[in-house]
Amino acid sequence: TGISAGIRSLGLMDKDVLDAYNMNHGTRGHALIFNHENFHWSVGMNRRAGTQIDADNLNDRFRELGFTTHVHQDVSTVRVREIIFEAARADHSNYDAFICVFLSHGDDGIIYAHDGVLRLQDLMNQFRGDVCPSLAGKPKIFFIQACRGDQHEIGVDAPDEPDSGPMPDERMTVADAGTQPTIPAGADFLVAYSVTQGYFSHRDTHYGSWFVQALSYILATYGNELEICEMLSMVNRMVSQRQVERAVDQEMIGKKQVPCFLSMLTKKLYFPRKVHHT
Amino acid sequence: TGISAGIRSLGLMDKDVLDAYNMNHGTRGHALIFNHENFHWSVGMNRRAGTQIDADNLNDRFRELGFTTHVHQDVSTVRVREIIFEAARADHSNYDAFICVFLSHGDDGIIYAHDGVLRLQDLMNQFRGDVCPSLAGKPKIFFIQACRGDQHEIGVDAPDEPDSGPMPDERMTVADAGTQPTIPAGADFLVAYSVTQGYFSHRDTHYGSWFVQALSYILATYGNELEICEMLSMVNRMVSQRQVERAVDQEMIGKKQVPCFLSMLTKKLYFPRKVHHT
Amino acid sequence: TGISAGIRSLGLMDKDVLDAYNMNHGTRGHALIFNHENFHWSVGMNRRAGTQIDADNLNDRFRELGFTTHVHQDVSTVRVREIIFEAARADHSNYDAFICVFLSHGDDGIIYAHDGVLRLQDLMNQFRGDVCPSLAGKPKIFFIQACRGDQHEIGVDAPDEPDSGPMPDERMTVADAGTQPTIPAGADFLVAYSVTQGYFSHRDTHYGSWFVQALSYILATYGNELEICEMLSMVNRMVSQRQVERAVDQEMIGKKQVPCFLSMLTKKLYFPRKVHHT
Amino acid sequence: TGISAGIRSLGLMDKDVLDAYNMNHGTRGHALIFNHENFHWSVGMNRRAGTQIDADNLNDRFRELGFTTHVHQDVSTVRVREIIFEAARADHSNYDAFICVFLSHGDDGIIYAHDGVLRLQDLMNQFRGDVCPSLAGKPKIFFIQACRGDQHEIGVDAPDEPDSGPMPDERMTVADAGTQPTIPAGADFLVAYSVTQGYFSHRDTHYGSWFVQALSYILATYGNELEICEMLSMVNRMVSQRQVERAVDQEMIGKKQVPCFLSMLTKKLYFPRKVHHT
Ligand SMILES: [Zn+2]
Ligand SMILES: [Zn+2]
Ligand SMILES: [Zn+2]
Ligand SMILES: [Zn+2]
Repeated sequence: TGISAGIRSLGLMDKDVLDAYNMNHGTRGHALIFNHENFHWSVGMNRRAGTQIDADNLNDRFRELGFTTHVHQDVSTVRVREIIFEAARADHSNYDAFICVFLSHGDDGIIYAHDGVLRLQDLMNQFRGDVCPSLAGKPKIFFIQACRGDQHEIGVDAPDEPDSGPMPDERMTVADAGTQPTIPAGADFLVAYSVTQGYFSHRDTHYGSWFVQALSYILATYGNELEICEMLSMVNRMVSQRQVERAVDQEMIGKKQVPCFLSMLTKKLYFPRKVHHT
Repeated sequence: TGISAGIRSLGLMDKDVLDAYNMNHGTRGHALIFNHENFHWSVGMNRRAGTQIDADNLNDRFRELGFTTHVHQDVSTVRVREIIFEAARADHSNYDAFICVFLSHGDDGIIYAHDGVLRLQDLMNQFRGDVCPSLAGKPKIFFIQACRGDQHEIGVDAPDEPDSGPMPDERMTVADAGTQPTIPAGADFLVAYSVTQGYFSHRDTHYGSWFVQALSYILATYGNELEICEMLSMVNRMVSQRQVERAVDQEMIGKKQVPCFLSMLTKKLYFPRKVHHT
Repeated sequence: TGISAGIRSLGLMDKDVLDAYNMNHGTRGHALIFNHENFHWSVGMNRRAGTQIDADNLNDRFRELGFTTHVHQDVSTVRVREIIFEAARADHSNYDAFICVFLSHGDDGIIYAHDGVLRLQDLMNQFRGDVCPSLAGKPKIFFIQACRGDQHEIGVDAPDEPDSGPMPDERMTVADAGTQPTIPAGADFLVAYSVTQGYFSHRDTHYGSWFVQALSYILATYGNELEICEMLSMVNRMVSQRQVERAVDQEMIGKKQVPCFLSMLTKKLYFPRKVHHT
Repeated sequence: TGISAGIRSLGLMDKDVLDAYNMNHGTRGHALIFNHENFHWSVGMNRRAGTQIDADNLNDRFRELGFTTHVHQDVSTVRVREIIFEAARADHSNYDAFICVFLSHGDDGIIYAHDGVLRLQDLMNQFRGDVCPSLAGKPKIFFIQACRGDQHEIGVDAPDEPDSGPMPDERMTVADAGTQPTIPAGADFLVAYSVTQGYFSHRDTHYGSWFVQALSYILATYGNELEICEMLSMVNRMVSQRQVERAVDQEMIGKKQVPCFLSMLTKKLYFPRKVHHT
């Protein structure tokens, strides 16, 4: 038939199509967490109350999955790039995978660091197989908790206060508009977004963002067993159902949040418990 | 812990998180295939030799999976919208899912119909849960074989020939630049793209596009058994490995193709064989 | 000095820098007016009541300035491209200039024809000096009355009515959001936009759009005397001051309109009265 | 007639339409020049040899026209915003106008500062009439010498060298691709761009950029006499003709440069010599 003729020319009819990524290297790999709570006044972005919970939760979850974690708090654009470039030039030969998390405000294709904007594509491109050969063929996973950033709620006329507004005492939920997600940079990339255009991203000032809450719960419960797409589909479900529970809350009505993930993965991805040799 | 506190507020700690979409409605559902081979001369787009193979392959595959298929050949932008709007207003209560395929040239967020351009987002939006309630909570799947369209290879000064160039006799492979994929429109959408920005889309004039070849092979082989994300990861793998096999081909060297899929699915998606009541 | 050294290397220190375009060819040239009032139901765009006044006004003004005018009413995307390509391939050797007007709904970089969307850049590019040599070095002027198109005010579920809603009896003013203007395509292009992003475009159902009203008045009063940039600055002024006069109107408060023009002109442009040889 | 009826409703048929901006305030105003020659290694942008000549030339020209000039050399994104916000909050009541110049690499809607990117629109918006009332109704003029930034010519793997490459000894001309210009932010804005999309921006390492060379020459020669649109049309002409003179230069063949300017000015703009009271 037409299919088998074409496929024969592909030369790929082997039985290995169901392979999973090799997660049995000596070490699981690095997980970078860029956590942005406060922004330089000139950036005009609100303080992101609750993001510390998100950073702590993900830090714990990735360590449980065997990753060596690095949390970078409110760093500048230059520092983000320095860290990213250093990570991309490192030797990942003995690692299974690479994870990078951005918790911040965002805009179309853009993420805010403490003092300005970064283009996600520029950062992701550093980990492409041709640029970072020791990660070629290995999963490169990005989690992006980013939303269009409340720009109009904060003026730029108050440079006297260091970087933030006062901490709100009571628990609140903040809803930001979503942005157009950026597409991953090449084979074996996976990017999970908290929200997409046309929806709203919710952040609870006490419990963190809905997306990271759900992601953390799923990773804590199923992280060593389920495939990443299964887990992220559950995250999609938990977050997109959530507003139904809060329909009593006046301001949030109709502000749905729907996460999405973009996959260029070429195999199944599990995080099995590492067997530690003693 | 922080997680369980947040999650408790979610009220979603039930044991059903591993659910799959209900694929046991009376009928599987509709699959629309928009196949574009020839374009009005004023559009300035090359004939897409080989696309008929793609349309036939997918038509066969979706029928095998139980879908009622509709192939629309070289229709106009108005006709695409009429068909889409009609499909979105139909009653899908008795169906499991909805599939829509575009085989054409494209550009950022755009797909070409016979006589002009359509915005993918406008078309996908018609199937959002709030617009098309009988598909709410059901999987809405789009396959996009589209690439930046060879604009410079064909002039606009030849309106005398109806719509096409001469059929090339020998088998060739055509490589087009990829575009920035469009993000799906809401919960329970999944969009699979043949290629993304920075890569090239290959179409074999005899066997069809690499993406649809791989997709057809995977659907034919595993369509009733594997989860959709598993199958699409295999497609990613087959296509992104393929150029390695053709390194002998001078013009194609370095022109890699990496598909991607974007998921807002909230459950696992299988296409189990339908039990026909007799 | 540094300047004269650099300029000497330019070889352009001649005294002719104040030249105006030669407007003494045998004929002034063609002016195409694409007037869009009604849209195919599937396009989901409101009827543009009042646009007929705009088309009539500009038709009269351009004829007074010596142009041969062509009004195309509610034509399709294919027809627009056919007309544009035909105009671009015509011999303009004996003409002074070329004018093209779009009166329609729009979006970023896009204009609506009766049955779909066109990219302005694709249309303008047809008149670049390298594509249309008989217009090289001659002014190519585009007027764009286009605004983000009321998409949410009209549903797509009413295909039974031909193309339009009922004609409103009383005079109304309609305000649409502006879009990101498209930049002209090359030397000797000028594009005048009714409105830009962040502002609103007003159309009076009896007297036509504010932009064309002002443009028509200025062309009628000063068309044979003033330079085009002078006239368009006056248009900017008339339109941007206008809302001050209507502050009594509740819904319009704060909805300012600011036109802009984008110039790649390389000389001064006047439309002196043609001396008719008898 | 239709026109006069519409215009009567405008209430703007006065005889003052030919007004020029009042340039007889006590002081001409401020001119900010952001000159970027060196970039932090992590930004991955080439040193812009020759830009110092541009900065010096424009500094001299704007001082001759009566402006108080401020040259900011290789400042960071935060510092650019601090300077811009300070300028926007200053009291311009006694000034005629405001000028801001960016000499740097760029991208669509973006300009590079020493350590990262800034969105032009964000910066321009600070001077809108509603944000900066003391400049309301006064001309706000931006000159942008910016081009897509040679990204592929410099790697990001050399953090050891401070910020730049070695100074080339011999004179060279560098050609960068142009970008999509940003539209000005409101009434009374004018933005002059060195180049637009589809063309190339040329910078001479000894004499500075072609655009600033031409602009400086025109301002030096006609700055006190001609209207700004007249002068910028001359700049358009000088620059767009220039490559004809250099057809001998192999690499530059076909790399044309066409500047453009975008005007929301509402009056004529002259820079008459200031009468100094003694
Ligand atoms: Zn935010
Ligand atoms: Zn193509
Ligand atoms: Zn409109
Ligand atoms: Zn550059």
